[in-house]
Amino acid sequence: MTTMSATQGSYPYQNEPIWSKSEKAIARTAFDAALGRELHELIQEAKKMASQIQQPPDLWDLEHYLSERRKEIDRKYDYRYSRLTHVFGKLLHESRLSEEELRGLEEDKLKLIRSLARFLAKADAA
Amino acid sequence: MTTMSATQGSYPYQNEPIWSKSEKAIARTAFDAALGRELHELIQEAKKMASQIQQPPDLWDLEHYLSERRKEIDRKYDYRYSRLTHVFGKLLHESRLSEEELRGLEEDKLKLIRSLARFLAKADAA
Repeated sequence: MTTMSATQGSYPYQNEPIWSKSEKAIARTAFDAALGRELHELIQEAKKMASQIQQPPDLWDLEHYLSERRKEIDRKYDYRYSRLTHVFGKLLHESRLSEEELRGLEEDKLKLIRSLARFLAKADAA
Repeated sequence: MTTMSATQGSYPYQNEPIWSKSEKAIARTAFDAALGRELHELIQEAKKMASQIQQPPDLWDLEHYLSERRKEIDRKYDYRYSRLTHVFGKLLHESRLSEEELRGLEEDKLKLIRSLARFLAKADAA
């Protein structure tokens, strides 16, 4: 990753939290669960859209929708430890993840996660 | 179109047939009918694929399939008079068009169309 090159073989970023082994396990489980739910939802949505197709433009709408959703999901579910608090903050904000699922993470991470979720909520309201 | 620039504002290609008004009407109807049938078929196929989706990879298979089919259909249904005999030859070969639908075209065009259809059939058999 280009953005990491400055620290390659060196120390991690100062502000980047260190993830312990048990935290990594919690993160992986929470991440996979949220992704699984989002994909399951999308499958249901795609089935519904497909069942309602009547004309060719509806077909290309479905294709376009799936393509955009795939790109969005790829961007959103970025499992790099340097990105994880951001990812979880966004998922928390979108109610795709509960705080309960993050239980066991250290407070430094939970603070970052909650703080982003709050920021996004404010941005939505603005 | 880059390929046309050499003859732009000049004479059409020597070997390019001229389409009369009535031939253009026949061509348009045949073209639209074949395209309509192919899209209708694709809609049925997409609905079937969507209804059978169980896991996320099936969803991305559908997206990929629709995207490829869209590009293929865009390429195939090229309504330029310089391309039409080629387009109809391919559609005839694929049984997406009957000779009946081309009735009323001049023999010069029908010959080109049949000749391409035969060529493609031979290529398939080889």
